[in-house]
Amino acid sequence: MSKKRNDRITSRDVDFAKWYTDVVIQADLIDYGPVKGTMIFKPHGYGIWELIMQTLDVEFKQQGIENVYLPLLIPASLFNQEKEHIEGFAPEVLTVTKVGDKPLEEELYIRPTSEVLFSQYFKNNIHSYRDLPLKNNQWVNVMRWEKTTRPFLRTSEFLWQEGHTMHQTSVEANQFALTILNLYAKFVEEYLLIPVVKGIKTINERFAGARETYTIESLMHDGQALQTGTSHFLGDNFAKVFDIKFQNADRELEYAYGTSWGVSTRMIGALIMTHADDEGLVLPSKIAPVQVQILQLGLDEPVQRVVDQLKLDLSKNYRIKVDASDKTFGYKMSASEIKGIPIRIEVGMRDVAQEQVVISSRVGEGKTAVKLDQVKTFVDQAVITYDQQLFSRAKTSLETRIYQAQTLSEYQKGIETQPGLYLVPFCGRVVCEKEVKQKTSTNSRCIPFNHDQSVEPCFNCGQATKIKAYFGRAY
Amino acid sequence: MSKKRNDRITSRDVDFAKWYTDVVIQADLIDYGPVKGTMIFKPHGYGIWELIMQTLDVEFKQQGIENVYLPLLIPASLFNQEKEHIEGFAPEVLTVTKVGDKPLEEELYIRPTSEVLFSQYFKNNIHSYRDLPLKNNQWVNVMRWEKTTRPFLRTSEFLWQEGHTMHQTSVEANQFALTILNLYAKFVEEYLLIPVVKGIKTINERFAGARETYTIESLMHDGQALQTGTSHFLGDNFAKVFDIKFQNADRELEYAYGTSWGVSTRMIGALIMTHADDEGLVLPSKIAPVQVQILQLGLDEPVQRVVDQLKLDLSKNYRIKVDASDKTFGYKMSASEIKGIPIRIEVGMRDVAQEQVVISSRVGEGKTAVKLDQVKTFVDQAVITYDQQLFSRAKTSLETRIYQAQTLSEYQKGIETQPGLYLVPFCGRVVCEKEVKQKTSTNSRCIPFNHDQSVEPCFNCGQATKIKAYFGRAY
Repeated sequence: MSKKRNDRITSRDVDFAKWYTDVVIQADLIDYGPVKGTMIFKPHGYGIWELIMQTLDVEFKQQGIENVYLPLLIPASLFNQEKEHIEGFAPEVLTVTKVGDKPLEEELYIRPTSEVLFSQYFKNNIHSYRDLPLKNNQWVNVMRWEKTTRPFLRTSEFLWQEGHTMHQTSVEANQFALTILNLYAKFVEEYLLIPVVKGIKTINERFAGARETYTIESLMHDGQALQTGTSHFLGDNFAKVFDIKFQNADRELEYAYGTSWGVSTRMIGALIMTHADDEGLVLPSKIAPVQVQILQLGLDEPVQRVVDQLKLDLSKNYRIKVDASDKTFGYKMSASEIKGIPIRIEVGMRDVAQEQVVISSRVGEGKTAVKLDQVKTFVDQAVITYDQQLFSRAKTSLETRIYQAQTLSEYQKGIETQPGLYLVPFCGRVVCEKEVKQKTSTNSRCIPFNHDQSVEPCFNCGQATKIKAYFGRAY
Repeated sequence: MSKKRNDRITSRDVDFAKWYTDVVIQADLIDYGPVKGTMIFKPHGYGIWELIMQTLDVEFKQQGIENVYLPLLIPASLFNQEKEHIEGFAPEVLTVTKVGDKPLEEELYIRPTSEVLFSQYFKNNIHSYRDLPLKNNQWVNVMRWEKTTRPFLRTSEFLWQEGHTMHQTSVEANQFALTILNLYAKFVEEYLLIPVVKGIKTINERFAGARETYTIESLMHDGQALQTGTSHFLGDNFAKVFDIKFQNADRELEYAYGTSWGVSTRMIGALIMTHADDEGLVLPSKIAPVQVQILQLGLDEPVQRVVDQLKLDLSKNYRIKVDASDKTFGYKMSASEIKGIPIRIEVGMRDVAQEQVVISSRVGEGKTAVKLDQVKTFVDQAVITYDQQLFSRAKTSLETRIYQAQTLSEYQKGIETQPGLYLVPFCGRVVCEKEVKQKTSTNSRCIPFNHDQSVEPCFNCGQATKIKAYFGRAY
């Protein structure tokens, strides 16, 4: 690693938590909001979320999913209908009790998620098998009051998409939940350049009210895991509670089967903890609000002409920003670096006189003088190389930190000295997982698909089991 | 007007209010939400809003405006800092008082608008004249608890964009508020095909906390006005309350000058009340989620082939939907009509055998048989003609219902028999407008730009005035 140059950012190896918040603030992603645990998404932070939304929205529409908007507030009586669900969310739910000075007749909850609203909506709009599958999504804000909060990772209010679908059969619904999980995994790996592990949540970690929760998990730079997206197979659970029935082709009434799934602004936290470094943010090109920054040095006419031409040419394929301010070169370079902009092009008199500019990337070593007529080709290749570098180093970081453990003490020792994901034989019982959590302050991340099925004793209770699960510290 | 064919929709001339809600529901735009005055935006309704957002967002970005996201909840103490502002909103504000069962230390308001949050954000981010102008916008949900509610027009929760900017000088801020007003007017006329009247709000109708409110007003089919967008020049009012200062080029501290401006899902209500008719919704092509619907009659191979080819060809330029269901032709046609889809293409065996299809528009008379190789050209022209028809009839409807009145009794008589916009000499005083409101249950819509400046007695109090204002009933 090169020598640390930015003294506004704590070194990642010295204090990871402090490093994280320094990057978030110095990269101009957010300000803290006036209410505990809330954030102001500044243009650079919101710009990343806009690109995430745009990309996923196209993918959803290709799956026949249509966007809707359901209300922010849920009447307490409606929310309380599904027991497991309300138990899971009750302690975190913000409650509206009055308007101005006047008390409301019924208390209203700010949505922590919208399964119950969608259930009522589905009940009203599903009558026949012809109405199925019904696939909807919404991009909204939700609130969950958290004790300890951290920007992006755990905030009282966050932005997300929540998809909700209904199907004729259990098999189709379950299959669709997996389709979405794969869509998420592809997006996270190809756009955010974060490698993922796919799997099933244990019963203890399952979404309140779901029959099965599928998850993608990623490993952050400090060896802690982060759940980047979940997709739930709800079975006919909500359908039974909210009486969502359809007439099948034989004119019989049947319960419908549901899914729900979401990814949130949490993904931006994963981005930071995967790619950023001691100099600041590092953004994958596909979700970088600015992909190429032109650092204009001086306002001389030849420089201006080259900047204008480059801007015109490169804008066709890239999101470009020109820094033509009167700040020093060092300041401009540092600002571009902190914000994680992938490619920088320096345009100054000396180089322009030689019909060239100087190009560098946020992660590569050194700079290259490139002739003006070669800039486009060079940038095209530099962006590809840059993204490959990001994914490749993240993949190495994940792969080298997947371990195995057979016993709890082996696991405990491992997690202390070599943080990462530990594949362990696990009985899967809630009581056993709670015991592990109490002893280690860690829990299961997922039961990976296609793991070795040999019978072994559970790493905690010793009970014979075929299941293997990843355990580790997590955000 | 042709004979009414749809018996699920009350005739517009019989009961305008009932007609409106019938269209909203039958066109599948919304369901009512479980909390009073809230709505569920169904795919067809949300689809219109998505197109409005996409179009305006591009326009905003061309103005150098960047999107941000500020929190949903505002601490009561912060909101209460600006007296006029809180007085205007207090009775409608939903208040969060607890989390789960635990009371909060400070009550939190769900944003009815975000001037105070932006003020705090601006204070933290504006230091030097180099930071100005600062132009931000957010697409969010807001809540205002309304006594009487109607879908889109007046709802407890609505979706909108709120833009907030800060400038170095009063002149620049005021100019920018007008730039946005003109941007709104252009959008509403060119995309929603609703003609507007531009002007200034009277003091009585001014936004709480603004120095000047600019507005665009439209006239609905029943002769009542609807405010389709407003842009506020805030002066240094919020800057003084929240201490938003910048260092100017001479290194002196000055207050910054602000604007705020917004349009909401209310515009969809204006769309309906301007263009829809007794058969259902009528959508301008540019914001129609489906622009061309192919009504496929039967599944015979030649029919299927033509449908597939048309879909492929037309999808390049239009949002296309194929109805290939086993419903009757009458049902399909009626469904397309209710939803307001601009262009219909019928594809059946008899026509396909003659290498043709039958094309009609949502508002034109009759149908045209069009040879297959002419369809693209025909549709291109049909869409242009369709939009022209919509705007032209709306413009006639507005222009023929702008009247003048010199006295209150003349105005009162007029508004009862011929609803519309009445240009009257008006002193502009709050007390006088309140008197008019009490006597007539109507208020001013705006003081139009560039009106005749001759001195005349105020239509209510008789005081000499140069001002003329539009008065009328409004939504």
